Amino acid sequence: MYFCSMIKIVILGAGNVATHLFKAFNKSDKLSVNQWYNRNIKSLQSFKNEVDICDDLALLKAADIYILAVSDDAVQELSQALPFENKLVAHTSGSVNIHDLDKKHRRAVFYPLQTFSKNVEMDFKNVPFCIEALEKNDLSLLKTLADSIGSPSQKINTEQRQTLHLAAVFVNNFTNQLYRIGHEISDVKNVNFDILKPLILETAKKVQTVSPFNAQTGPAKRRDKKTIKKHLKLLESDLHKDIYKLLTESIQKTHGRKKL
Amino acid sequence: MYFCSMIKIVILGAGNVATHLFKAFNKSDKLSVNQWYNRNIKSLQSFKNEVDICDDLALLKAADIYILAVSDDAVQELSQALPFENKLVAHTSGSVNIHDLDKKHRRAVFYPLQTFSKNVEMDFKNVPFCIEALEKNDLSLLKTLADSIGSPSQKINTEQRQTLHLAAVFVNNFTNQLYRIGHEISDVKNVNFDILKPLILETAKKVQTVSPFNAQTGPAKRRDKKTIKKHLKLLESDLHKDIYKLLTESIQKTHGRKKL
Repeated sequence: MYFCSMIKIVILGAGNVATHLFKAFNKSDKLSVNQWYNRNIKSLQSFKNEVDICDDLALLKAADIYILAVSDDAVQELSQALPFENKLVAHTSGSVNIHDLDKKHRRAVFYPLQTFSKNVEMDFKNVPFCIEALEKNDLSLLKTLADSIGSPSQKINTEQRQTLHLAAVFVNNFTNQLYRIGHEISDVKNVNFDILKPLILETAKKVQTVSPFNAQTGPAKRRDKKTIKKHLKLLESDLHKDIYKLLTESIQKTHGRKKL
Repeated sequence: MYFCSMIKIVILGAGNVATHLFKAFNKSDKLSVNQWYNRNIKSLQSFKNEVDICDDLALLKAADIYILAVSDDAVQELSQALPFENKLVAHTSGSVNIHDLDKKHRRAVFYPLQTFSKNVEMDFKNVPFCIEALEKNDLSLLKTLADSIGSPSQKINTEQRQTLHLAAVFVNNFTNQLYRIGHEISDVKNVNFDILKPLILETAKKVQTVSPFNAQTGPAKRRDKKTIKKHLKLLESDLHKDIYKLLTESIQKTHGRKKL
């Protein structure tokens, strides 16, 4: 059934994920966004010519799937407040348990494992979706949904998803903070951060084909005490020194034992 | 003079940097690699049909520039051992002082700020060179050399270069270790690391146009104590917990004060 007619969608929420999903869904001729709800309708005003916008749960239209793209804390309450039951309701959070959705619904998760920027267009072929549902048919609808916007998808349970969300903090937020530290320390010596950008990109590209284990190089891995000492001396911030020491220790622990 | 005839080069050393430089130089019709020296000639055997190879310093040919692409520890000694003077001699190290080269030479630095893999071809337009020389003419030869292989170059003094080398450890080695941790923790839950790759790439792409300060998101920045607590509970390794805490602290310090 899902495969021979357009999938009708209602989006709830107006943040980054909701907006990027709306744009992607809206482009697909296999999908129809029937309505876009937000508690505060102002955030949706600029889309009113493209979709039916709404701020009243009582006026929600019929749809094949309701996507709650709201903050983690709001998922449970919003799912309880929905004035219907037995419909497919999916949240988009990396860390919220599927069972936190009200059990009157057919519960599901549609979590995009990617970082979205407000004003940067996202190519959805680079957005892998972690999908989870309690019923098999619902899982295949989620898969079709991802397919329709060109995204890969993978069945991932709540425990795995929470781990991926944690891993994402390491490879995205923490990595970005290392870029920031690179920015801070080059700034002190009046060096433009731009010169580090090709290296940043190459480091990320390398692990697309080589494991991070095999990609590692540098003073920590080769236990080059002289350079490590020099670097620690150069660092002015105690926090940066601590980060340097701890990540050096981590690299040496990884490379002091057998590879994974 | 440099601009109307081919620049004649002798490369010394047979590591990753030397090999990538040889390949790039060899492609350019503005450059001529007259000779490639290594202490152990075996490492150069596979190139003997492309270039004159040599393991005897006494037999070094005349050239416009001698490039010492050897390990940091070997730079000084090798520069002393060269049986000539008043020639342009450049090392390729991020951390060695220009004055560590023997003062009988016209000393210089030609440091590629990039990570090279043994078997991965490098596009040299993505390799910015930090160039340094004691004489103006030598600096312009270094610039021409970079231009000839399509690389950007920037005049960077020793202190700045050492800081960039340190920054590179953060954005390359330490970042790669965060990828490794992402790999380790997803492995434990039987999730394929591949699903994190698009996020890794997007994180690096984002800071090509947005500052790391403005690119930051996530639980640390928004001081989401609930998620942070959840993540710390999920982490099994004490070292990973410590890294999580320290980088969270660093993000909060960065975003608790005025932006750079």
